[in-house]
Amino acid sequence: METCDQTILNAETDTVIDPSTSDHSFNEAERDALYQTIFSRRDVRGQFTSKPIPEDVLSRILTAAHYAPSVGFMQPWNFILIRGEETKQRVHNLFKKAHDEAADMFEGEKRDTYKTLKLEGIMESPLNICITCDKDRTGPVVIGRTHIKAMDLYSTVCAVQNLWLAARAEGVGVGWVSILDQKKLKQTLKLPKRVTPVAYLCLGYVSEFFDKPELQSAGWLPRLPMGDVVNFEEYDKDANDPFATNLFEAMKRDQKNIEDGRYRR
Amino acid sequence: METCDQTILNAETDTVIDPSTSDHSFNEAERDALYQTIFSRRDVRGQFTSKPIPEDVLSRILTAAHYAPSVGFMQPWNFILIRGEETKQRVHNLFKKAHDEAADMFEGEKRDTYKTLKLEGIMESPLNICITCDKDRTGPVVIGRTHIKAMDLYSTVCAVQNLWLAARAEGVGVGWVSILDQKKLKQTLKLPKRVTPVAYLCLGYVSEFFDKPELQSAGWLPRLPMGDVVNFEEYDKDANDPFATNLFEAMKRDQKNIEDGRYRR
Repeated sequence: METCDQTILNAETDTVIDPSTSDHSFNEAERDALYQTIFSRRDVRGQFTSKPIPEDVLSRILTAAHYAPSVGFMQPWNFILIRGEETKQRVHNLFKKAHDEAADMFEGEKRDTYKTLKLEGIMESPLNICITCDKDRTGPVVIGRTHIKAMDLYSTVCAVQNLWLAARAEGVGVGWVSILDQKKLKQTLKLPKRVTPVAYLCLGYVSEFFDKPELQSAGWLPRLPMGDVVNFEEYDKDANDPFATNLFEAMKRDQKNIEDGRYRR
Repeated sequence: METCDQTILNAETDTVIDPSTSDHSFNEAERDALYQTIFSRRDVRGQFTSKPIPEDVLSRILTAAHYAPSVGFMQPWNFILIRGEETKQRVHNLFKKAHDEAADMFEGEKRDTYKTLKLEGIMESPLNICITCDKDRTGPVVIGRTHIKAMDLYSTVCAVQNLWLAARAEGVGVGWVSILDQKKLKQTLKLPKRVTPVAYLCLGYVSEFFDKPELQSAGWLPRLPMGDVVNFEEYDKDANDPFATNLFEAMKRDQKNIEDGRYRR
Protein backbone atom coordinates (compact mmCIF):
# COMPACT_ATOMS: atom_id res chain seq x y z
CA MET A 1 0.00 0.00 0.00
CA GLU A 2 1.31 3.40 -0.90
CA THR A 3 1.38 5.97 1.84
CA CYS A 4 1.19 9.64 1.26
CA ASP A 5 1.63 11.05 4.76
CA GLN A 6 4.31 13.56 3.78
CA THR A 7 2.51 14.97 0.77
CA ILE A 8 -0.52 17.13 0.10
CA LEU A 9 -2.34 17.20 -3.21
CA ASN A 10 -3.04 20.71 -4.37
CA ALA A 11 -6.54 20.38 -5.82
CA GLU A 12 -6.26 23.46 -8.02
CA THR A 13 -3.06 22.53 -9.83
CA ASP A 14 -2.96 18.75 -9.36
CA THR A 15 0.62 19.09 -8.13
CA VAL A 16 2.00 17.28 -5.10
CA ILE A 17 3.40 19.53 -2.37
CA ASP A 18 5.89 18.19 0.15
CA PRO A 19 5.18 20.23 3.30
CA SER A 20 8.71 19.77 4.60
CA THR A 21 10.13 21.65 1.62
CA SER A 22 7.20 23.77 0.43
CA ASP A 23 7.81 27.47 0.61
CA HIS A 24 5.22 29.80 2.09
CA SER A 25 7.30 32.91 1.49
CA PHE A 26 6.08 35.76 -0.65
CA ASN A 27 7.93 36.60 -3.88
CA GLU A 28 10.61 39.27 -3.92
CA ALA A 29 8.37 42.06 -5.25
CA GLU A 30 5.77 41.32 -2.56
CA ARG A 31 8.35 41.24 0.20
CA ASP A 32 9.83 44.45 -1.11
CA ALA A 33 6.41 46.13 -0.90
CA LEU A 34 6.20 45.18 2.77
CA TYR A 35 9.72 46.39 3.51
CA GLN A 36 9.08 49.63 1.59
CA THR A 37 6.04 50.17 3.81
CA ILE A 38 7.91 49.41 7.03
CA PHE A 39 11.00 51.49 6.22
CA SER A 40 9.18 54.53 4.79
CA ARG A 41 6.57 54.74 7.60
CA ARG A 42 6.86 57.97 9.58
CA ASP A 43 5.36 59.53 12.70
CA VAL A 44 3.70 62.51 11.01
CA ARG A 45 3.10 65.73 12.89
CA GLY A 46 3.29 68.66 10.52
CA GLN A 47 2.63 67.73 6.89
CA PHE A 48 -1.10 66.98 6.90
CA THR A 49 -3.29 68.23 4.07
CA SER A 50 -7.03 68.73 4.46
CA LYS A 51 -7.92 66.21 1.70
CA PRO A 52 -10.47 63.84 3.24
CA ILE A 53 -9.79 60.09 3.47
CA PRO A 54 -12.35 58.22 1.31
CA GLU A 55 -14.52 55.61 2.99
CA ASP A 56 -13.03 52.64 1.09
CA VAL A 57 -9.46 53.66 2.00
CA LEU A 58 -10.37 54.14 5.66
CA SER A 59 -12.17 50.80 5.67
CA ARG A 60 -9.03 49.00 4.49
CA ILE A 61 -6.92 50.77 7.11
CA LEU A 62 -9.32 49.90 9.95
CA THR A 63 -9.74 46.33 8.73
CA ALA A 64 -5.96 45.87 8.77
CA ALA A 65 -5.99 47.04 12.39
CA HIS A 66 -8.85 44.71 13.34
CA TYR A 67 -6.97 41.69 11.97
CA ALA A 68 -4.04 42.22 14.34
CA PRO A 69 -3.14 39.36 16.68
CA SER A 70 -4.89 39.44 20.05
CA VAL A 71 -4.29 37.47 23.21
CA GLY A 72 -6.86 34.69 23.54
CA PHE A 73 -8.49 36.10 20.36
CA MET A 74 -10.21 38.69 22.58
CA GLN A 75 -10.00 41.58 20.07
CA PRO A 76 -10.14 44.09 22.94
CA TRP A 77 -9.98 47.20 20.75
CA ASN A 78 -12.41 49.93 19.73
CA PHE A 79 -11.63 52.54 17.10
CA ILE A 80 -13.21 55.90 17.95
CA LEU A 81 -13.24 58.08 14.84
CA ILE A 82 -13.06 61.76 15.76
CA ARG A 83 -14.06 64.22 13.06
CA GLY A 84 -15.71 67.02 15.03
CA GLU A 85 -13.80 70.26 15.53
CA GLU A 86 -15.13 70.55 19.07
CA THR A 87 -13.84 67.16 20.21
CA LYS A 88 -10.49 67.77 18.49
CA GLN A 89 -10.20 71.16 20.16
CA ARG A 90 -10.81 69.66 23.60
CA VAL A 91 -8.12 67.02 23.01
CA HIS A 92 -5.79 69.70 21.67
CA ASN A 93 -6.27 71.65 24.88
CA LEU A 94 -5.26 68.54 26.82
CA PHE A 95 -2.16 68.29 24.64
CA LYS A 96 -1.20 71.94 25.24
CA LYS A 97 -1.42 71.55 29.00
CA ALA A 98 0.57 68.30 29.05
CA HIS A 99 3.13 69.71 26.63
CA ASP A 100 3.85 72.64 28.94
CA GLU A 101 4.25 70.25 31.86
CA ALA A 102 6.57 68.07 29.78
CA ALA A 103 8.80 70.99 28.73
CA ASP A 104 9.55 71.67 32.39
CA MET A 105 10.90 68.13 32.80
CA PHE A 106 13.76 68.72 30.35
CA GLU A 107 16.84 70.73 31.30
CA GLY A 108 18.93 73.40 29.55
CA GLU A 109 19.52 72.95 25.83
CA LYS A 110 17.22 69.92 25.62
CA ARG A 111 14.36 72.06 26.94
CA ASP A 112 14.95 74.74 24.29
CA THR A 113 15.08 72.10 21.54
CA TYR A 114 11.98 70.36 22.93
CA LYS A 115 9.99 73.58 22.69
CA THR A 116 10.83 73.95 18.98
CA LEU A 117 9.62 70.45 18.05
CA LYS A 118 6.19 70.00 16.42
CA LEU A 119 4.72 67.01 18.24
CA GLU A 120 1.11 66.71 17.05
CA GLY A 121 -1.27 67.50 14.21
CA ILE A 122 -4.59 67.17 16.04
CA MET A 123 -6.34 70.15 14.45
CA GLU A 124 -4.72 70.00 10.99
CA SER A 125 -5.38 66.31 10.33
CA PRO A 126 -8.89 65.61 8.98
CA LEU A 127 -9.33 62.51 11.17
CA ASN A 128 -8.27 61.57 14.69
CA ILE A 129 -8.66 57.99 15.93
CA CYS A 130 -8.48 56.86 19.54
CA ILE A 131 -7.72 53.13 19.83
CA THR A 132 -8.88 51.73 23.14
CA CYS A 133 -8.59 48.45 25.06
CA ASP A 134 -11.54 46.87 26.89
CA LYS A 135 -9.98 44.59 29.52
CA ASP A 136 -13.34 42.89 30.24
CA ARG A 137 -14.37 42.18 26.65
CA THR A 138 -14.40 38.39 26.95
CA GLY A 139 -14.62 37.90 30.70
CA PRO A 140 -12.07 37.87 33.50
CA VAL A 141 -9.92 34.89 32.42
CA VAL A 142 -8.24 35.16 29.02
CA ILE A 143 -5.96 32.56 27.41
CA GLY A 144 -2.44 33.97 27.47
CA ARG A 145 -3.28 36.86 29.83
CA THR A 146 -3.16 34.77 32.99
CA HIS A 147 0.50 35.61 33.74
CA ILE A 148 1.04 38.91 31.89
CA LYS A 149 -1.82 41.30 32.63
CA ALA A 150 -0.70 43.79 29.97
CA MET A 151 -1.17 41.33 27.10
CA ASP A 152 -4.50 42.94 26.12
CA LEU A 153 -2.82 46.35 25.92
CA TYR A 154 -0.02 44.79 23.88
CA SER A 155 -2.60 43.28 21.50
CA THR A 156 -4.10 46.72 21.04
CA VAL A 157 -0.68 48.12 20.14
CA CYS A 158 -0.35 45.41 17.46
CA ALA A 159 -3.56 46.84 15.98
CA VAL A 160 -2.02 50.33 16.07
CA GLN A 161 1.02 49.13 14.13
CA ASN A 162 -1.11 47.32 11.53
CA LEU A 163 -3.13 50.50 11.07
CA TRP A 164 0.04 52.58 10.75
CA LEU A 165 1.49 50.34 8.03
CA ALA A 166 -1.77 50.07 6.07
CA ALA A 167 -2.11 53.85 6.21
CA ARG A 168 1.44 54.34 4.89
CA ALA A 169 0.75 52.06 1.92
CA GLU A 170 -2.44 54.06 1.25
CA GLY A 171 -0.44 57.31 1.29
CA VAL A 172 -2.04 58.36 4.58
CA GLY A 173 0.19 59.75 7.33
CA VAL A 174 -0.28 58.80 10.99
CA GLY A 175 1.00 60.56 14.09
CA TRP A 176 0.75 59.07 17.60
CA VAL A 177 0.07 61.76 20.22
CA SER A 178 1.08 60.50 23.66
CA ILE A 179 1.51 63.82 25.46
CA LEU A 180 -1.97 63.79 27.01
CA ASP A 181 -3.43 63.26 30.47
CA GLN A 182 -5.03 59.84 30.14
CA LYS A 183 -7.68 60.40 32.79
CA LYS A 184 -8.89 63.58 31.13
CA LEU A 185 -8.82 61.93 27.70
CA LYS A 186 -11.03 59.15 29.10
CA GLN A 187 -13.53 61.75 30.31
CA THR A 188 -13.46 63.62 27.00
CA LEU A 189 -14.22 60.50 24.94
CA LYS A 190 -16.60 59.05 27.58
CA LEU A 191 -14.68 55.79 28.03
CA PRO A 192 -16.09 53.40 30.65
CA LYS A 193 -13.82 52.74 33.62
CA ARG A 194 -12.71 49.32 32.31
CA VAL A 195 -11.49 50.81 28.99
CA THR A 196 -7.96 52.17 28.52
CA PRO A 197 -7.09 54.69 25.79
CA VAL A 198 -3.97 53.12 24.27
CA ALA A 199 -3.25 55.36 21.28
CA TYR A 200 -4.50 58.75 20.12
CA LEU A 201 -3.71 59.02 16.41
CA CYS A 202 -3.90 61.82 13.82
CA LEU A 203 -4.55 60.67 10.24
CA GLY A 204 -4.51 62.42 6.91
CA TYR A 205 -2.89 62.66 3.51
CA VAL A 206 0.44 64.47 3.63
CA SER A 207 2.47 66.85 1.48
CA GLU A 208 5.48 64.58 2.04
CA PHE A 209 6.78 61.68 4.07
CA PHE A 210 10.21 62.61 5.42
CA ASP A 211 13.20 60.43 4.51
CA LYS A 212 14.10 59.83 8.15
CA PRO A 213 12.44 60.21 11.56
CA GLU A 214 12.39 63.86 12.59
CA LEU A 215 14.18 63.25 15.89
CA GLN A 216 16.97 61.51 13.97
CA SER A 217 17.29 64.39 11.45
CA ALA A 218 17.19 66.95 14.27
CA GLY A 219 20.13 65.21 15.98
CA TRP A 220 18.07 64.50 19.10
CA LEU A 221 19.19 60.84 19.10
CA PRO A 222 20.99 58.63 16.55
CA ARG A 223 19.60 55.43 14.98
CA LEU A 224 21.20 52.57 16.91
CA PRO A 225 23.32 50.09 14.93
CA MET A 226 21.60 46.69 14.77
CA GLY A 227 24.71 45.14 16.34
CA ASP A 228 23.95 47.02 19.57
CA VAL A 229 20.51 45.46 20.05
CA VAL A 230 20.91 41.82 18.94
CA ASN A 231 22.14 39.39 21.61
CA PHE A 232 22.54 35.63 21.97
CA GLU A 233 21.10 33.36 24.70
CA GLU A 234 21.26 36.09 27.37
CA TYR A 235 20.86 39.85 27.63
CA ASP A 236 23.80 41.79 26.12
CA LYS A 237 25.73 38.57 25.33
CA ASP A 238 27.54 38.12 22.00
CA ALA A 239 28.27 34.97 20.01
CA ASN A 240 31.26 34.15 17.83
CA ASP A 241 30.08 31.28 15.63
CA PRO A 242 29.75 31.57 11.83
CA PHE A 243 25.95 32.06 12.01
CA ALA A 244 26.33 35.05 14.32
CA THR A 245 29.14 36.51 12.20
CA ASN A 246 27.14 36.15 8.97
CA LEU A 247 24.00 37.57 10.63
CA PHE A 248 25.85 40.65 11.86
CA GLU A 249 27.34 41.23 8.40
CA ALA A 250 23.89 40.93 6.81
CA MET A 251 22.33 43.30 9.35
CA LYS A 252 25.09 45.86 8.76
CA ARG A 253 24.47 45.68 5.01
CA ASP A 254 20.67 45.87 5.38
CA GLN A 255 20.88 48.83 7.73
CA LYS A 256 23.31 50.68 5.45
CA ASN A 257 20.91 50.19 2.52
CA ILE A 258 18.07 51.73 4.51
CA GLU A 259 20.09 54.69 5.76
CA ASP A 260 21.42 55.24 2.21
CA GLY A 261 17.85 55.60 0.95
CA ARG A 262 17.27 52.19 -0.68
CA TYR A 263 13.65 52.21 0.59
CA ARG A 264 12.94 55.90 0.04
CA ARG A 265 9.52 56.56 -1.51
CA MET B 1 8.83 88.02 -8.16
CA GLU B 2 7.60 84.52 -8.74
CA THR B 3 6.89 82.46 -5.70
CA CYS B 4 7.01 78.70 -5.64
CA ASP B 5 5.82 77.91 -2.13
CA GLN B 6 3.30 75.28 -3.19
CA THR B 7 5.61 73.38 -5.53
CA ILE B 8 8.68 71.20 -5.20
CA LEU B 9 11.12 70.57 -8.01
CA ASN B 10 12.04 66.92 -8.28
CA ALA B 11 15.77 67.11 -9.09
CA GLU B 12 15.92 63.64 -10.60
CA THR B 13 13.14 64.06 -13.15
CA ASP B 14 12.97 67.85 -13.48
CA THR B 15 9.21 67.64 -12.96
CA VAL B 16 7.27 69.93 -10.69
CA ILE B 17 5.28 68.21 -7.93
CA ASP B 18 2.31 69.93 -6.35
CA PRO B 19 2.31 68.59 -2.77
CA SER B 20 -1.39 69.26 -2.34
CA THR B 21 -2.29 66.75 -5.06
CA SER B 22 0.73 64.41 -5.18
CA ASP B 23 -0.05 60.87 -4.18
CA HIS B 24 2.22 58.99 -1.82
CA SER B 25 0.18 55.81 -1.90
CA PHE B 26 1.63 52.51 -3.09
CA ASN B 27 0.23 50.89 -6.23
CA GLU B 28 -2.47 48.22 -5.99
CA ALA B 29 -0.11 45.24 -6.26
CA GLU B 30 2.10 46.66 -3.51
CA ARG B 31 -0.83 47.39 -1.24
CA ASP B 32 -2.18 43.93 -1.89
CA ALA B 33 1.16 42.41 -0.82
CA LEU B 34 0.88 44.26 2.51
CA TYR B 35 -2.73 43.21 3.04
CA GLN B 36 -1.91 39.59 2.10
CA THR B 37 0.79 39.69 4.78
CA ILE B 38 -1.48 41.20 7.41
CA PHE B 39 -4.46 38.92 6.75
CA SER B 40 -2.51 35.64 6.38
CA ARG B 41 -0.32 36.22 9.46
CA ARG B 42 -0.93 33.58 12.14
CA ASP B 43 0.09 32.85 15.72
CA VAL B 44 1.92 29.59 15.07
CA ARG B 45 2.21 26.94 17.76
CA GLY B 46 2.31 23.52 16.17
CA GLN B 47 3.47 23.52 12.54
CA PHE B 48 7.17 24.31 12.90
CA THR B 49 9.71 22.42 10.79
CA SER B 50 13.36 22.10 11.80
CA LYS B 51 14.64 23.86 8.67
CA PRO B 52 17.00 26.61 9.87
CA ILE B 53 16.35 30.27 9.09
CA PRO B 54 19.21 31.59 6.89
CA GLU B 55 21.19 34.57 8.16
CA ASP B 56 20.03 36.95 5.40
CA VAL B 57 16.35 36.13 6.03
CA LEU B 58 16.73 36.59 9.79
CA SER B 59 18.57 39.86 9.20
CA ARG B 60 15.66 41.26 7.19
CA ILE B 61 13.17 40.16 9.87
CA LEU B 62 15.18 41.75 12.70
CA THR B 63 15.83 44.91 10.70
CA ALA B 64 12.08 45.30 10.10
CA ALA B 65 11.60 45.07 13.87
CA HIS B 66 14.34 47.61 14.59
CA TYR B 67 12.71 50.15 12.26
CA ALA B 68 9.47 50.20 14.27
CA PRO B 69 8.32 53.53 15.68
CA SER B 70 9.59 54.32 19.16
CA VAL B 71 8.60 57.01 21.62
CA GLY B 72 11.17 59.84 21.59
CA PHE B 73 13.18 57.71 19.11
CA MET B 74 14.52 55.79 22.13
CA GLN B 75 14.61 52.34 20.41
CA PRO B 76 14.31 50.64 23.80
CA TRP B 77 14.41 47.07 22.47
CA ASN B 78 16.90 44.21 22.49
CA PHE B 79 16.44 41.01 20.52
CA ILE B 80 17.83 38.01 22.39
CA LEU B 81 18.25 35.11 19.95
CA ILE B 82 17.88 31.78 21.74
CA ARG B 83 19.21 28.74 19.89
CA GLY B 84 20.52 26.56 22.71
CA GLU B 85 18.51 23.49 23.74
CA GLU B 86 19.34 24.11 27.39
CA THR B 87 17.95 27.68 27.45
CA LYS B 88 14.87 26.60 25.50
CA GLN B 89 14.30 23.71 27.92
CA ARG B 90 14.45 26.06 30.92
CA VAL B 91 11.92 28.41 29.31
CA HIS B 92 9.74 25.44 28.38
CA ASN B 93 9.75 24.37 32.03
CA LEU B 94 8.53 27.86 32.96
CA PHE B 95 5.75 27.49 30.39
CA LYS B 96 4.66 24.09 31.75
CA LYS B 97 4.38 25.42 35.28
CA ALA B 98 2.46 28.54 34.25
CA HIS B 99 0.23 26.53 31.91
CA ASP B 100 -0.85 24.25 34.79
CA GLU B 101 -1.61 27.30 36.93
CA ALA B 102 -3.57 28.85 34.06
CA ALA B 103 -5.71 25.74 33.49
CA ASP B 104 -6.95 26.00 37.07
CA MET B 105 -8.27 29.49 36.39
CA PHE B 106 -10.80 28.26 33.79
CA GLU B 107 -14.01 26.50 34.77
CA GLY B 108 -15.87 23.46 33.48
CA GLU B 109 -15.93 22.94 29.74
CA LYS B 110 -13.59 25.86 29.09
CA ARG B 111 -10.96 24.17 31.27
CA ASP B 112 -11.24 20.91 29.33
CA THR B 113 -10.95 22.74 26.01
CA TYR B 114 -8.05 24.84 27.33
CA LYS B 115 -6.09 21.70 28.19
CA THR B 116 -6.41 20.39 24.62
CA LEU B 117 -5.02 23.55 23.01
CA LYS B 118 -1.43 23.63 21.81
CA LEU B 119 -0.16 27.00 23.00
CA GLU B 120 3.58 27.07 22.26
CA GLY B 121 6.33 25.63 20.06
CA ILE B 122 9.37 26.47 22.19
CA MET B 123 11.27 23.20 21.66
CA GLU B 124 10.14 22.46 18.08
CA SER B 125 10.94 25.87 16.61
CA PRO B 126 14.60 26.30 15.62
CA LEU B 127 14.79 29.83 17.01
CA ASN B 128 13.29 31.61 20.00
CA ILE B 129 13.56 35.40 20.34
CA CYS B 130 12.91 37.40 23.50
CA ILE B 131 12.19 41.06 22.75
CA THR B 132 12.91 43.27 25.74
CA CYS B 133 12.42 46.92 26.71
CA ASP B 134 15.11 48.96 28.48
CA LYS B 135 13.27 51.78 30.21
CA ASP B 136 16.52 53.67 30.95
CA ARG B 137 18.05 53.49 27.47
CA THR B 138 18.10 57.24 26.82
CA GLY B 139 17.80 58.65 30.33
CA PRO B 140 14.89 59.34 32.66
CA VAL B 141 12.96 61.92 30.58
CA VAL B 142 11.77 60.78 27.15
CA ILE B 143 9.77 62.86 24.64
CA GLY B 144 6.25 61.43 24.58
CA ARG B 145 6.71 59.23 27.68
CA THR B 146 6.20 62.07 30.17
CA HIS B 147 2.47 61.37 30.59
CA ILE B 148 2.14 57.70 29.58
CA LYS B 149 4.80 55.62 31.27
CA ALA B 150 4.03 52.51 29.20
CA MET B 151 4.92 54.19 25.89
CA ASP B 152 8.31 52.45 25.79
CA LEU B 153 6.62 49.07 26.23
CA TYR B 154 4.15 50.01 23.49
CA SER B 155 7.05 50.93 21.18
CA THR B 156 8.55 47.51 21.81
CA VAL B 157 5.25 45.87 20.83
CA CYS B 158 5.35 47.83 17.55
CA ALA B 159 8.70 46.12 16.93
CA VAL B 160 7.09 42.74 17.67
CA GLN B 161 4.37 43.36 15.09
CA ASN B 162 6.87 44.51 12.44
CA LEU B 163 8.88 41.33 13.08
CA TRP B 164 5.75 39.19 12.85
CA LEU B 165 4.72 40.65 9.48
CA ALA B 166 8.22 40.48 7.98
CA ALA B 167 8.49 36.86 9.11
CA ARG B 168 5.14 36.00 7.47
CA ALA B 169 6.26 37.47 4.15
CA GLU B 170 9.48 35.44 4.44
CA GLY B 171 7.44 32.26 5.02
CA VAL B 172 8.54 32.08 8.66
CA GLY B 173 5.95 31.37 11.34
CA VAL B 174 5.92 33.23 14.66
CA GLY B 175 4.20 32.27 17.91
CA TRP B 176 4.00 34.61 20.94
CA VAL B 177 4.27 32.67 24.22
CA SER B 178 2.83 34.74 27.06
CA ILE B 179 2.10 31.96 29.55
CA LEU B 180 5.33 32.44 31.51
CA ASP B 181 6.29 33.85 34.91
CA GLN B 182 8.00 37.10 33.94
CA LYS B 183 10.26 37.27 36.99
CA LYS B 184 11.62 33.80 36.34
CA LEU B 185 12.05 34.54 32.65
CA LYS B 186 14.10 37.61 33.59
CA GLN B 187 16.35 35.44 35.75
CA THR B 188 16.72 32.80 33.03
CA LEU B 189 17.80 35.32 30.39
CA LYS B 190 19.82 37.42 32.88
CA LEU B 191 17.92 40.65 32.22
CA PRO B 192 18.99 43.67 34.31
CA LYS B 193 16.36 45.01 36.69
CA ARG B 194 15.48 47.97 34.43
CA VAL B 195 14.72 45.66 31.47
CA THR B 196 11.25 44.16 30.87
CA PRO B 197 10.73 41.02 28.76
CA VAL B 198 7.87 42.12 26.49
CA ALA B 199 7.52 39.18 24.09
CA TYR B 200 8.85 35.62 24.00
CA LEU B 201 8.58 34.43 20.39
CA CYS B 202 9.06 31.08 18.64
CA LEU B 203 10.22 31.30 15.00
CA GLY B 204 10.60 28.76 12.24
CA TYR B 205 9.48 27.67 8.81
CA VAL B 206 6.14 25.88 8.91
CA SER B 207 4.39 23.03 7.16
CA GLU B 208 1.37 25.29 6.74
CA PHE B 209 -0.17 28.59 7.77
CA PHE B 210 -3.75 27.97 8.85
CA ASP B 211 -6.53 29.81 7.01
CA LYS B 212 -7.93 31.27 10.20
CA PRO B 213 -6.77 31.79 13.80
CA GLU B 214 -6.93 28.51 15.74
CA LEU B 215 -9.14 29.92 18.50
CA GLN B 216 -11.62 31.07 15.83
CA SER B 217 -11.63 27.65 14.11
CA ALA B 218 -11.96 25.88 17.47
CA GLY B 219 -15.07 27.94 18.28
CA TRP B 220 -13.46 29.46 21.37
CA LEU B 221 -14.50 32.95 20.29
CA PRO B 222 -15.88 34.45 17.06
CA ARG B 223 -14.25 37.15 14.95
CA LEU B 224 -16.04 40.37 15.86
CA PRO B 225 -17.83 42.24 13.06
CA MET B 226 -16.06 45.53 12.29
CA GLY B 227 -19.29 47.35 12.99
CA ASP B 228 -19.01 46.35 16.65
CA VAL B 229 -15.67 48.05 17.19
CA VAL B 230 -15.85 51.28 15.17
CA ASN B 231 -17.39 54.29 16.96
CA PHE B 232 -17.79 58.00 16.32
CA GLU B 233 -16.67 60.90 18.55
CA GLU B 234 -17.27 58.94 21.78
CA TYR B 235 -16.97 55.36 23.02
CA ASP B 236 -19.71 53.09 21.67
CA LYS B 237 -21.42 55.94 19.83
CA ASP B 238 -22.78 55.52 16.29
CA ALA B 239 -23.17 58.06 13.49
CA ASN B 240 -25.81 58.28 10.79
CA ASP B 241 -24.29 60.52 8.12
CA PRO B 242 -23.45 59.29 4.58
CA PHE B 243 -19.73 58.93 5.40
CA ALA B 244 -20.48 56.60 8.32
CA THR B 245 -22.98 54.60 6.25
CA ASN B 246 -20.55 54.19 3.35
CA LEU B 247 -17.72 53.29 5.71
CA PHE B 248 -19.77 50.57 7.42
CA GLU B 249 -20.77 49.10 4.05
CA ALA B 250 -17.13 49.09 2.90
CA MET B 251 -15.98 47.44 6.15
CA LYS B 252 -18.66 44.76 5.84
CA ARG B 253 -17.53 44.01 2.28
CA ASP B 254 -13.83 44.00 3.20
CA GLN B 255 -14.41 41.70 6.17
CA LYS B 256 -16.53 39.30 4.10
CA ASN B 257 -13.75 39.10 1.50
CA ILE B 258 -11.23 38.16 4.18
CA GLU B 259 -13.47 35.56 5.83
CA ASP B 260 -14.29 34.12 2.38
CA GLY B 261 -10.58 33.53 1.77
CA ARG B 262 -9.74 36.43 -0.58
CA TYR B 263 -6.33 36.79 1.14
CA ARG B 264 -5.60 33.09 1.63
CA ARG B 265 -2.01 32.13 0.79
